Amino acid sequence: MRNTQDAALIERLTPADAAVPQLGQAACDSPKCSGAFIEDESGVLVGISRHNLADPQAVPVFFEEAGPRRQLFFAPHKTKVAVVTCGGVCPGINDVIRSIVMEAHHHYGVAAVLGIRYGLRGFIPACRHDVMELTPDAVAEIHEFGGTILGSSRGPQAVDEIVDAMERLGIGFCVFIGGVGTMRAASAIMAEITARELPMGVVCIPKTVDNDIHFVSRTFGFATAVEQAAEAIACAHVEASGAPYGIGLVKLMGRQSGFIAAEASMGLKHVNMVLVPEDLFALEGPGGVLDVLEKRLRSRGHAVIVAAEGGGQHLVDDTGRFDPSGNPVLGDFCGLLAARIKAHCKAAGLPITLKAIDPSYIIRSVPANTADAVYCGFLGRLAVHAGMAGKTGLMIGSVNDRFVHVPLPLVTGERKRVDIASDYWQAVLDSTGQPRFAQAGG
Amino acid sequence: MRNTQDAALIERLTPADAAVPQLGQAACDSPKCSGAFIEDESGVLVGISRHNLADPQAVPVFFEEAGPRRQLFFAPHKTKVAVVTCGGVCPGINDVIRSIVMEAHHHYGVAAVLGIRYGLRGFIPACRHDVMELTPDAVAEIHEFGGTILGSSRGPQAVDEIVDAMERLGIGFCVFIGGVGTMRAASAIMAEITARELPMGVVCIPKTVDNDIHFVSRTFGFATAVEQAAEAIACAHVEASGAPYGIGLVKLMGRQSGFIAAEASMGLKHVNMVLVPEDLFALEGPGGVLDVLEKRLRSRGHAVIVAAEGGGQHLVDDTGRFDPSGNPVLGDFCGLLAARIKAHCKAAGLPITLKAIDPSYIIRSVPANTADAVYCGFLGRLAVHAGMAGKTGLMIGSVNDRFVHVPLPLVTGERKRVDIASDYWQAVLDSTGQPRFAQAGG
Amino acid sequence: MRNTQDAALIERLTPADAAVPQLGQAACDSPKCSGAFIEDESGVLVGISRHNLADPQAVPVFFEEAGPRRQLFFAPHKTKVAVVTCGGVCPGINDVIRSIVMEAHHHYGVAAVLGIRYGLRGFIPACRHDVMELTPDAVAEIHEFGGTILGSSRGPQAVDEIVDAMERLGIGFCVFIGGVGTMRAASAIMAEITARELPMGVVCIPKTVDNDIHFVSRTFGFATAVEQAAEAIACAHVEASGAPYGIGLVKLMGRQSGFIAAEASMGLKHVNMVLVPEDLFALEGPGGVLDVLEKRLRSRGHAVIVAAEGGGQHLVDDTGRFDPSGNPVLGDFCGLLAARIKAHCKAAGLPITLKAIDPSYIIRSVPANTADAVYCGFLGRLAVHAGMAGKTGLMIGSVNDRFVHVPLPLVTGERKRVDIASDYWQAVLDSTGQPRFAQAGG
Amino acid sequence: MRNTQDAALIERLTPADAAVPQLGQAACDSPKCSGAFIEDESGVLVGISRHNLADPQAVPVFFEEAGPRRQLFFAPHKTKVAVVTCGGVCPGINDVIRSIVMEAHHHYGVAAVLGIRYGLRGFIPACRHDVMELTPDAVAEIHEFGGTILGSSRGPQAVDEIVDAMERLGIGFCVFIGGVGTMRAASAIMAEITARELPMGVVCIPKTVDNDIHFVSRTFGFATAVEQAAEAIACAHVEASGAPYGIGLVKLMGRQSGFIAAEASMGLKHVNMVLVPEDLFALEGPGGVLDVLEKRLRSRGHAVIVAAEGGGQHLVDDTGRFDPSGNPVLGDFCGLLAARIKAHCKAAGLPITLKAIDPSYIIRSVPANTADAVYCGFLGRLAVHAGMAGKTGLMIGSVNDRFVHVPLPLVTGERKRVDIASDYWQAVLDSTGQPRFAQAGG
Repeated sequence: MRNTQDAALIERLTPADAAVPQLGQAACDSPKCSGAFIEDESGVLVGISRHNLADPQAVPVFFEEAGPRRQLFFAPHKTKVAVVTCGGVCPGINDVIRSIVMEAHHHYGVAAVLGIRYGLRGFIPACRHDVMELTPDAVAEIHEFGGTILGSSRGPQAVDEIVDAMERLGIGFCVFIGGVGTMRAASAIMAEITARELPMGVVCIPKTVDNDIHFVSRTFGFATAVEQAAEAIACAHVEASGAPYGIGLVKLMGRQSGFIAAEASMGLKHVNMVLVPEDLFALEGPGGVLDVLEKRLRSRGHAVIVAAEGGGQHLVDDTGRFDPSGNPVLGDFCGLLAARIKAHCKAAGLPITLKAIDPSYIIRSVPANTADAVYCGFLGRLAVHAGMAGKTGLMIGSVNDRFVHVPLPLVTGERKRVDIASDYWQAVLDSTGQPRFAQAGG
Repeated sequence: MRNTQDAALIERLTPADAAVPQLGQAACDSPKCSGAFIEDESGVLVGISRHNLADPQAVPVFFEEAGPRRQLFFAPHKTKVAVVTCGGVCPGINDVIRSIVMEAHHHYGVAAVLGIRYGLRGFIPACRHDVMELTPDAVAEIHEFGGTILGSSRGPQAVDEIVDAMERLGIGFCVFIGGVGTMRAASAIMAEITARELPMGVVCIPKTVDNDIHFVSRTFGFATAVEQAAEAIACAHVEASGAPYGIGLVKLMGRQSGFIAAEASMGLKHVNMVLVPEDLFALEGPGGVLDVLEKRLRSRGHAVIVAAEGGGQHLVDDTGRFDPSGNPVLGDFCGLLAARIKAHCKAAGLPITLKAIDPSYIIRSVPANTADAVYCGFLGRLAVHAGMAGKTGLMIGSVNDRFVHVPLPLVTGERKRVDIASDYWQAVLDSTGQPRFAQAGG
Repeated sequence: MRNTQDAALIERLTPADAAVPQLGQAACDSPKCSGAFIEDESGVLVGISRHNLADPQAVPVFFEEAGPRRQLFFAPHKTKVAVVTCGGVCPGINDVIRSIVMEAHHHYGVAAVLGIRYGLRGFIPACRHDVMELTPDAVAEIHEFGGTILGSSRGPQAVDEIVDAMERLGIGFCVFIGGVGTMRAASAIMAEITARELPMGVVCIPKTVDNDIHFVSRTFGFATAVEQAAEAIACAHVEASGAPYGIGLVKLMGRQSGFIAAEASMGLKHVNMVLVPEDLFALEGPGGVLDVLEKRLRSRGHAVIVAAEGGGQHLVDDTGRFDPSGNPVLGDFCGLLAARIKAHCKAAGLPITLKAIDPSYIIRSVPANTADAVYCGFLGRLAVHAGMAGKTGLMIGSVNDRFVHVPLPLVTGERKRVDIASDYWQAVLDSTGQPRFAQAGG
Repeated sequence: MRNTQDAALIERLTPADAAVPQLGQAACDSPKCSGAFIEDESGVLVGISRHNLADPQAVPVFFEEAGPRRQLFFAPHKTKVAVVTCGGVCPGINDVIRSIVMEAHHHYGVAAVLGIRYGLRGFIPACRHDVMELTPDAVAEIHEFGGTILGSSRGPQAVDEIVDAMERLGIGFCVFIGGVGTMRAASAIMAEITARELPMGVVCIPKTVDNDIHFVSRTFGFATAVEQAAEAIACAHVEASGAPYGIGLVKLMGRQSGFIAAEASMGLKHVNMVLVPEDLFALEGPGGVLDVLEKRLRSRGHAVIVAAEGGGQHLVDDTGRFDPSGNPVLGDFCGLLAARIKAHCKAAGLPITLKAIDPSYIIRSVPANTADAVYCGFLGRLAVHAGMAGKTGLMIGSVNDRFVHVPLPLVTGERKRVDIASDYWQAVLDSTGQPRFAQAGG
């Protein structure tokens, strides 16, 4: 409902960047004779501000609009579709799986939908995970449950073994539900498929509770996670306001991007400071976090602080460690912050009561709310439409309120981050009453 | 997240249609010296499909982007802002009010924000409602409650009396929170203001739980209402599946547009038919609703039907009556449907158990969920920015994932409706397994 | 947590009334060698007030305490247990079913648990419903869903056909989950079993969302239903307080007993009047409902009224009709009330806005909350303990905070009702500020 | 709904133990002329099992039933009531405060209700907290919020200063809302009042989210906390079942008593082990926790463990530290457990994924659910009834499904704990499938 895309990234785009690979000539009629098919050429303009169109030399860039195609590459009744879920769980994965299965079976009548267990490990023979056949009956109720019925895992697996398995299983196209790391793996898999000249499609559905993927205005599960995060913040406010000089400190997910923290803080009105990875705030000194906190405590008697888990990493030592997905293990900024608050307030003569809340997995393991459930339904359906039409190497994205096909190279680079100079961040500041902090090292 | 705008309406737009009136020369610096001001010329393109841009003769149409302006028309510390809420309640009204008050006071430092009680009646001396001063302290917790702290009412009031009252109160600009009827009233008020040559602004925030306003991708409160509606549907499914040949029939809000019914049905997977005002389905005959229902009952033993309150009006007699807002009183289609189902199934030898659920106000009187709360925060803030800059005769709209200024004449005509030929409706059909019904009178 | 038992009923009890039939000599050791077995003689005193014990002539009456017995009547590995659910749904039925299955299988290792479909109809061959085998795996997740996985139906079936079916299926004992009507049927079935001299047990678990069964302090599902009812009342308050002279009228379940209305009204503080079947209030005249309402509207500007569906039946015509369970079809008191309110307020010059909310099935079709889920777990477990020990003709009741065996004749007579003279009802009056109404016909 | 009282404690009671002090002769009529007054002699029998009554020598012990008295000690319109909230927050405190205020004002018409800020500190002049006058209007909406509007603090304050303040404020009786520590302080305050021969009452309402107070079947807020805890467990199950050899470890409140852990685990069916302070389980060795866990992982692939914060303290070093309330700071058993699980599973060749969830304050800072709200309403009302009648040195307790007056000495000793030998704990074991663990040091 409000654009959080990177304007500079959009400026740099060329029509070539936006082109989606096609497996081959689509040669088979879609079974749905009526209905509003989408034509490949009905693109969606990416840069829609006046200045994007002002330069008469500039060639406008369009993404393919997602949706059912009149002509299919795969003959439905001979086609097997695979689904795999990778990385951490997120509200709505089962909704996406269910939607893929229902669309593939009821709309196209495919031969089978195969569920790969426990992420990319499920392709690896040595891991000995059986493939799970996903029939409409088997998935009818799965959306009632959080998590993923397929299971998930982190980390890469050998690309050739994966493609071997896909060949052995006779897969037409595979839907990868995962984050940037998974999409990098999908790119490598697609490269191997291309090298082997196989007629096999790779379609990705972006999954990250942090909402940090470009060309996706809101990742699925994000809305649900924000609702959950808001409940934790409400508790912090109760704890803070119930004690003299009470401080509630809430740690939320968000490794590189502070969208959950920003959005939940705007939803709940009781947050006084939001500390996100994108803001290189100073702790000490005038205009730093501790100074602002002290003023707040003196004037109002309590305070609520929300910190994204990746916030303040510029102030803690690099751990030098990595998780199985290859993400750096973050330093304990919240621990540091709590210690520095205590020291600062002690020195300032403020007898604080600090209550730290870390809802951790509670915000991501719940079932999707209705908004996310509807959204997940679209993603699953559109992934099947794209796959059946022979589209490959793409992610189902959403820009300018339309679902589109985004080529994978556009999303496997940098993460989408909160733009501290944007009106979006200003809205966070207005909502919290937080000033722009003095910057660290400044 | 998916466009539900009327493509034909967009095709017809001209740049003149999109121009927003301005009260006069903005002459005063905005108090926020830093920050990302929005320039009037940074418009948002309305038609963003490739074919919208294909015709070299066509002049692209832009809406002004909403946001803080560098130059203000009103000198903040002398300005009084008024807020009025009209029509039925909707989740999030208090969030909008709170946001207006906070932005006007904390960001601009206005002289006062005045709350008008019980809709337009609050302007009328004979109704004897006092004006309520809205301070930051007074509104700090109001977002925790459903409804509107100002109260509301339906129906028009004398325009000259309203403008008299606005003059008497010394209002700089007034924010009208209401639906299409309210925006028509706001247009008339603006005309009177113009005739009197008053420097007084009219800014509207669209409010309709039915989501039936053009150039608003999703009205505030809609997301919350859909969550509530989904809960009612879940109950209908339980009731239906617990009895032999059980039928759950849920009536949902949606007088002219079936968005709540459509969206909630996609969210909850147990709906088998959605009956919306936009679909002129037949009840009887092959492919009619009763025929499809009977087949469903025979194959699966139970069924869930969701009907928008305005669904099936082509099949009931016109009541000839109108409510105080001037909306026609709808005929009792759900009563007719229940009777026809019973008769049909009795004739067909199916011993059904029909349970009707009408959640009515339960879906609209709850507090906003976090998604709506965040959204309401933007609407309130942006209305104040627009008003302070001297913009008038506009609605804060949202197109293509951007907040924009939409001139009132563009939204006071026809309602936005579900396009039965669109992929959006096809998604509803795919999700429910509902066929395209035979059409009435066909 | 507060006693709502009928004191007069307790006074009349004799030790003979409290004796539970036993199928025969328990002859087999319970498989659980350790653990706290309950002895039959460890009874629970029913009347525990000082005056119950003051009369030295009076013989104290004890109910058997429910729980595992050291000696069993049925040899577990040869025993089949049946479960049947009758009447309207209620939160927690699936929890009870799950608990029965888990206890019977994991604790005792029975041969099978058989689920009878669609109430007593499931025993009748002509209805052609298959029996459903209930294994631990089959029921593992059913508690996540409202309603009953077995289905239900209303109304009696031929007792001899039922006992024929029980014989044919080789059932050891059957757990009937239902209300007073079901327990009457269970009594008749037990009589037939006794007449045939069959070693077959009848154990009942009380199920009524209205909480109107004697010797059950709170029926399962009641707590969940009250939470749901409270949400509907909250909406009525929002609607009422948002309009000048707004009135919210909420209709809640409660055919003969107003416990849901009373309890939800105490939970939500915004109710001004509670109209229950037990109170024979007058509408007209000084101190009648309309008079009190008018005063409330004049002093506070809005009002919320909660009416149990059986409230005010003394003021409407008898419908003369009965539902399939044999319950009289209630007259439309809420319709009458709304009409009389409108007429009264029009005459009084009060321009009211009346919003009626009927949440109907929404309060009973949801899954159980945790409190009910825990409670249902005990009921299922204790029913299996009772059945395995050869207890028959009993209901699992709860008095004085203990689970007990209550002989069926004690519960198949009159319903438990709110005692208008009790401190419990006084608490409702204190909470709502409602006076004691003038009584009808008085 | 199921008795968790300590049977041995009940056996030891004498009639003298159960006698409640009375400030003096009640001399003033209660303003409510009608209504069901409770007589002091209408006691509630404490021990109600048959064997409690079997001994003809034994004198039955009764608690006074709580409720309105016909004769008052305090003349209402001259009386000031004080309320103070101590210790950690708990769902429903504001409901209790609201109920006290409403009953004192609307039922009795007292002169004032005074809210003491931030616990016992609020009595101490040096802490400079103003007293807050609690009018019906001021508290009308407070039940919508978690926490306590009065604020709270931990730790003792000088008894003479407290009584000085009570005299200075002219308090008739004070309601202390707090746990065992608070009730010890209240006892000391009452002793000082007695020594000074003041006509001043001390009434306590038990508040502990851990539910660990004798003669209270369920403390207020416990039900709400259990609902919240169940949500955290559901997330742990999702996390555990989504990874190969996934383990979810949830830490819940419960310093000395495991009621929250036990109850939430029975409510949610996915818990495999519950570790409570009352169970002195071994970690290592056959039948120890790790052994049982390994078997579970091998057979089912994942596991959920719930640990009360005080569980396993026999296995960690004493921290030797105390919090401001004087409670020992607990050792980090969950940290130890996680480490030992990792080591054990690594040695056993099981590649586990362990996810720890600590919902901490999230389970206690939420508003009360309806069940707790109703319960809190009774507690507040009954405390006022007791205070007005001149009862002192008592706690409003609940035994055998009745509200009673419990003399403070009966509750300020040992905590109520889960009886590991009871059928209640057996129900937990049956529900989880957990065996009785080998015991530590055995």
